[in-house]
Amino acid sequence: MGDINAIAKQFTDFYYQTFDTNRSALQSLYRAHSMLSWEGTQILGANDISEKLTTLPFSQVQHKVTTLDAQPSSPTVASLIVSVTGVLIVDDSPNPLQFSQVFQLIPDAGSYYVFNDIFRLNYG
Amino acid sequence: MGDINAIAKQFTDFYYQTFDTNRSALQSLYRAHSMLSWEGTQILGANDISEKLTTLPFSQVQHKVTTLDAQPSSPTVASLIVSVTGVLIVDDSPNPLQFSQVFQLIPDAGSYYVFNDIFRLNYG
Repeated sequence: MGDINAIAKQFTDFYYQTFDTNRSALQSLYRAHSMLSWEGTQILGANDISEKLTTLPFSQVQHKVTTLDAQPSSPTVASLIVSVTGVLIVDDSPNPLQFSQVFQLIPDAGSYYVFNDIFRLNYG
Repeated sequence: MGDINAIAKQFTDFYYQTFDTNRSALQSLYRAHSMLSWEGTQILGANDISEKLTTLPFSQVQHKVTTLDAQPSSPTVASLIVSVTGVLIVDDSPNPLQFSQVFQLIPDAGSYYVFNDIFRLNYG
């Protein structure tokens, strides 16, 4: 499982760094059949997902990953499920928000794209 | 997506009710190639997963689901990813613990089994 954990770490490092610095560049990680559930709202396809992510109502955001777990998601394809918990620091708020996020990554042309993405804030 | 949400609700209702009342009965939900990541510990197969779940260091536990999201996890098979956040009340502790749990459910003989299971407590 060493390899899969390294892939998960590399993906999430890239994903959250891009989210926090250049959100519109996330679009290339999704495909036309990718799904995002954002706080219970379901969005289909890279265009609409990018539209959602780039119009979220904050300007500055910083993700800090607390836990990262990965498992193979198929016996036949090198896809993986990545589960993240962490905190979000939004704009100048002094209160970090806990979040949970799940990705399913599918191999494609030497890299991976996001097929499933489920995001939730965790209110204490 | 109505159907998939109903399946996710039915599964999690059953799973957490069984966890909270008769933990050893969870074994039938897993198969020999099922995977559990429990607080970062990786466990493979129904037998070892059941051993882990039945020997957790608490006697009474109650799960309360706060959010539940589901998505199809394959374009070709009726499998699904279920993401749960909620709280755990352990023994007589007055402090509920936040948790995040992810399942991938695979259809099998008119029902579903758990292929992936990732559990994490979220410390605030």
